[in-house]
Amino acid sequence: MKKKILSGNRATGKIHIGNLFGVLTNWAKLQSEYECFYEIADLHVLTTNYNHNEYMRSNIKEMATDWIACGLSPEKSTIFIQSLVPEHAELHLFFSMLVPLGWLERNPTLKEQVRDLNLQDKVNYGLLGYPVLQAADILAYKADAVPVGEDQLAHLEITREIARRFNSVYKSIFPEPKALLTDSPKVPGLDGRKMSKSLDNAIFVDELPEITKEKVKKAFTDPLKIHKNDKGHPDGCVVFAYYKLCANSNLSGCLPVNAGKVEEVRKLCTQGKIGCVNCKEELADLLNKLLVPYREVYSKVNQENIDEILEEGSRKARKVAKETLGEVKEVMNLW
Amino acid sequence: MKKKILSGNRATGKIHIGNLFGVLTNWAKLQSEYECFYEIADLHVLTTNYNHNEYMRSNIKEMATDWIACGLSPEKSTIFIQSLVPEHAELHLFFSMLVPLGWLERNPTLKEQVRDLNLQDKVNYGLLGYPVLQAADILAYKADAVPVGEDQLAHLEITREIARRFNSVYKSIFPEPKALLTDSPKVPGLDGRKMSKSLDNAIFVDELPEITKEKVKKAFTDPLKIHKNDKGHPDGCVVFAYYKLCANSNLSGCLPVNAGKVEEVRKLCTQGKIGCVNCKEELADLLNKLLVPYREVYSKVNQENIDEILEEGSRKARKVAKETLGEVKEVMNLW
Repeated sequence: MKKKILSGNRATGKIHIGNLFGVLTNWAKLQSEYECFYEIADLHVLTTNYNHNEYMRSNIKEMATDWIACGLSPEKSTIFIQSLVPEHAELHLFFSMLVPLGWLERNPTLKEQVRDLNLQDKVNYGLLGYPVLQAADILAYKADAVPVGEDQLAHLEITREIARRFNSVYKSIFPEPKALLTDSPKVPGLDGRKMSKSLDNAIFVDELPEITKEKVKKAFTDPLKIHKNDKGHPDGCVVFAYYKLCANSNLSGCLPVNAGKVEEVRKLCTQGKIGCVNCKEELADLLNKLLVPYREVYSKVNQENIDEILEEGSRKARKVAKETLGEVKEVMNLW
Repeated sequence: MKKKILSGNRATGKIHIGNLFGVLTNWAKLQSEYECFYEIADLHVLTTNYNHNEYMRSNIKEMATDWIACGLSPEKSTIFIQSLVPEHAELHLFFSMLVPLGWLERNPTLKEQVRDLNLQDKVNYGLLGYPVLQAADILAYKADAVPVGEDQLAHLEITREIARRFNSVYKSIFPEPKALLTDSPKVPGLDGRKMSKSLDNAIFVDELPEITKEKVKKAFTDPLKIHKNDKGHPDGCVVFAYYKLCANSNLSGCLPVNAGKVEEVRKLCTQGKIGCVNCKEELADLLNKLLVPYREVYSKVNQENIDEILEEGSRKARKVAKETLGEVKEVMNLW
């Protein structure tokens, strides 16, 4: 029997090339080796945005369409919506009894969010409990492993601690999910900060090629290279970072760039033999070429089927979660 | 249409005369005026006792039997088990997103529990969230009112705040449940502290009369009255407190004591004309007489029917909670 993995993403709508390079290509690959559960986490969105969820439904549909365009297959994987599996809420409540506040207060991700979102006195109970809900998400499927980035290791450790504590207090029914660390390339946004939809610095997988071109035109480059002949410093340049991504990624389809090309661009830039305008134009073309297969699939995904795919996926997920919950209630001696 | 109330109790097993005088007689009366939902709160038990729930099932059954013996009618009221209505867990999760930590950290009941149970560094996430789960319990039924004692007003205020916040963020679908303050007499335990099963100082509704007699014999009385002829101080005496309860309570059936009798006992005691031994014997007989109707019903409740009563009650409760949840998910824009 294949081992199980669970991963997911907050339901924030369409995905950008940062998600594609960093997460989706990896998820798509894992499908052949694992039984995969991919969750569109709508409830996690509420932890920081409970009052801005007017586009929840369309965000979910866009994200699902993008996932499929990026290689997730509803036949191979279980793609589902978190809130359609109420067993997560029940597990979350049961686990909440086992989790000392200290585990949650020490969570480094929470500290970052408090800083980044200016939440000092405004942390709500649900945000503090983010890792508890995440544990419920993962353990509902008894996932053996979770593909994560370095920055999520602390969260996964709480899931493992919850599994251990549950197993020792009641009965050993949960695996301790392992981290599947993937070295996903860091993808900078157009302004050099982390690529993020909320920072308005993202290139979307499903946008029109002209848009991508326009965006790349305004990308952050070496501020010391003003004239074409100035010698540039490619290592701090967003455009150069994208060249590297185009060459190194594990994307499906043919790569439009190879390592030789990257080195050539580096040389031309540092020697002042290419200007940023040209360099950007060429990069935009390469990026658009790279994204062709995804955009093609995207355009073919029938929006009318998406509802059905998600509801069917959620039914499948729920069947598994229900089984786990039955076991949980039994060992907890509940009615 | 009748207004709705919800109330409940942690599933801790059989009930004592403190519960009977303080809560149950009131609940029984409310049945004629309100549509009543009475919850056996098994999940709330886990907030402080997640690792001691081996008797959960029998505790639930004993409590339900006692409730019925004390006048709750499964025909008139919806008597149900909290964990059999998973909508509470879902509502709890949704509400958790709306509740600032400060509301919970300031909760005076939590502070008392931390002190009484020595929990300083051991508060778990679920215990902090007790009032959120309570809000879910109450609002799942859109209860108009909640019968509470003074000490629970702070909790109810959080429920009202959650209802207000939900109504203003999404759409106004919840009533703000009012407190039905009942001046329930304070019932001291046999040792003078609050009557509580965990303090081992309780007289149980369903115990044998001989047991009640034995317990009353050891009750705390005026420590300055050593000999029969010593003048006593009835106001600090547990036995005298029980005399008053027997006269003042709103119990069903005939009261074996009236106000005149209480004053007579006071006089005899303060004048040193009655000894504690006699006084206790007489009180035990009166208490046993008072408890006859409850004990009779108790002995007739068929234990085999209790499962069915609770499961049927929980089905009825769930139907209502499900309707509320559907509305909640709609106004929250969930799938």
